[in-house]
Amino acid sequence: MAKHCASVSPSSTPLLKDELDIVIPTIRNLDFLEMWRPFFQPYHLIIVQDGDPSKVIKVPEGFDYELYNRNDINKILGPKASCISFKDSACRCFGYMVSKKKYIYTIDDDCFVAKDPTGKEINALEQHIKNLLCPSTPFFFNTLYDPYRDGADFVRGYPFSLREGVPTAVSHGLWLNIPDYDAPTQLVKPLERNTRYVDAVMTIPKGTLFPMCGMNLAFDRELIGPAMYFGLMGDGQPIGRYDDMWAGWCIKVICDHLGLGVKTGLPYIWHSKASNPFVNLKKEYKGIYWQEELIPFFQSVALPKECTSVQKCYLELSKQVKAKLGKVDDYFNKLADAMITWIEAWDDLNPSTATAAKLPNGSSK
Amino acid sequence: MAKHCASVSPSSTPLLKDELDIVIPTIRNLDFLEMWRPFFQPYHLIIVQDGDPSKVIKVPEGFDYELYNRNDINKILGPKASCISFKDSACRCFGYMVSKKKYIYTIDDDCFVAKDPTGKEINALEQHIKNLLCPSTPFFFNTLYDPYRDGADFVRGYPFSLREGVPTAVSHGLWLNIPDYDAPTQLVKPLERNTRYVDAVMTIPKGTLFPMCGMNLAFDRELIGPAMYFGLMGDGQPIGRYDDMWAGWCIKVICDHLGLGVKTGLPYIWHSKASNPFVNLKKEYKGIYWQEELIPFFQSVALPKECTSVQKCYLELSKQVKAKLGKVDDYFNKLADAMITWIEAWDDLNPSTATAAKLPNGSSK
Repeated sequence: MAKHCASVSPSSTPLLKDELDIVIPTIRNLDFLEMWRPFFQPYHLIIVQDGDPSKVIKVPEGFDYELYNRNDINKILGPKASCISFKDSACRCFGYMVSKKKYIYTIDDDCFVAKDPTGKEINALEQHIKNLLCPSTPFFFNTLYDPYRDGADFVRGYPFSLREGVPTAVSHGLWLNIPDYDAPTQLVKPLERNTRYVDAVMTIPKGTLFPMCGMNLAFDRELIGPAMYFGLMGDGQPIGRYDDMWAGWCIKVICDHLGLGVKTGLPYIWHSKASNPFVNLKKEYKGIYWQEELIPFFQSVALPKECTSVQKCYLELSKQVKAKLGKVDDYFNKLADAMITWIEAWDDLNPSTATAAKLPNGSSK
Repeated sequence: MAKHCASVSPSSTPLLKDELDIVIPTIRNLDFLEMWRPFFQPYHLIIVQDGDPSKVIKVPEGFDYELYNRNDINKILGPKASCISFKDSACRCFGYMVSKKKYIYTIDDDCFVAKDPTGKEINALEQHIKNLLCPSTPFFFNTLYDPYRDGADFVRGYPFSLREGVPTAVSHGLWLNIPDYDAPTQLVKPLERNTRYVDAVMTIPKGTLFPMCGMNLAFDRELIGPAMYFGLMGDGQPIGRYDDMWAGWCIKVICDHLGLGVKTGLPYIWHSKASNPFVNLKKEYKGIYWQEELIPFFQSVALPKECTSVQKCYLELSKQVKAKLGKVDDYFNKLADAMITWIEAWDDLNPSTATAAKLPNGSSK
């Protein structure tokens, strides 16, 4: 019988109130927070302001937040700020790095509260926390989906030795209304809306890659934070809109290696508006081409057993990126270097968890 | 953009009317067919009567069917009838063998028509046919589930080269009301009912095993039929209730090897009554123990590239079962032999598809 997660039973105190930061990348006033007030106000926000640092971003009253613009990022990281993207929502990963909490929830500022089929407003954050606090089952598929949910369990034929599950590192939520399509699909199906509410949470099996979207995403910083790097995108880079995809491929192979779980499904948010498909096409077209080589690369990545920490895994991955993807485009050499810089910056800001982040030869690169 | 499956658009003729058989194993009068009449009557039924062959099974009027009891099976297969289980619903696989159709749907006689959340009766067979006629996507996970359904597609980051999908060999449907639990879970949670309608169909990723239940299952005989053997269960055997699980593990490794898809999710049927957990425990207990060794075995099975047909794959698998599971229990030596007998009997009854079913040494065993 699946053990249910006692720690997520209803209570008057918001779950993990002092253990979770909400990270929001933005270039505009955060009016969207008004709708989230009942769910987000108890939590601390980390706002990463993209673009012009002289612009003043208004945050609705009553929210507890810290805000970083580009000048702040440059001051805090010095030359290592080069690993943080500019003019792209990839900049959000700076927020993961400066957080001191165990859990992160990140959401885009065009995402609103969705309703379930009964018309009830969905507390997306609460569902993510449930997902993160319950184990994952990456080694065998359960046909009734998450066996730890109320009313569900492991079905006949599920090995008993696997029913404890493994710790969940990532919870990937979905979107009603505007689906997360690439530019070609947006162009071909401009009117398509996602109206199907699928009442399921599931573990993505070990060995299977998935397209991770950063719009509505939660994770355990302690378990996987140093791998949640959103890469070099936007200003001065040949590519955009692959920040979350890149992070998703990296975290998945590292979770698989370390025996951690990645869940997808509930909760839904309401994605309010489609971005411009012509602009997106310009950002994406190299990614659409490159991903045909990136996916086979990530599918065949093997991390040696000496990689016992996320940092070690990530540095090993950066080496393999340089060795195998550098020939696809010189961009991947730059990205591989930025992956190392990211880990160095992470460890500078998080010295207590900076275990074994040094390279074998003792140099920093 | 995902191509939708034109061939499954609504029409007044029942889908695949002359290309699909419904296989039902039973020991009782088939009154349950009354409820299925609107959906099943256009199709041909193959009824496999288990237990006492002198008993007369009543089939409601108006159904087109053939019925086989144990005497018929013995007459048709001769000594090879030894591979067909007796006093266990595993006998249903005889129906797969005598069918001459491209598709099979099999259902238990305690399964009734379920309703969707709007109260509409679910035509389970129609949904299975849709699942089988649309491709599968085993190589990469799509977070919006089946990309070929109306209102869905491949999400951003899904490689375009994988969007054609692969042919679907198996469609595994689910159950509302009584979930398919093992005896220990039945004993611990006697009152649990499955009330969650999850509106999703998904491909089980390549390399991932699942617990396949035979209660509500459809497949393409031409693509995977010879691997859909339900093993030696019931009378004279040390185990029961693992017939469909065994078939599920076998078909999954073979589908993975041959590049075929396996889907799970919709449609639901209404499973009316739980079987006796004490009786089940007696049937299952060796399976519960053995499966801890069977799963690692199936997870590590590698089929050589010479195995280019289902029959070749299956015979190779039987060799590996004997070599690696024979030491778990002598039962697996018997089962490995029965797997060979099954293929021989299949090829006898299906000579046109009996490609390369002979063993390399030319002998029959």
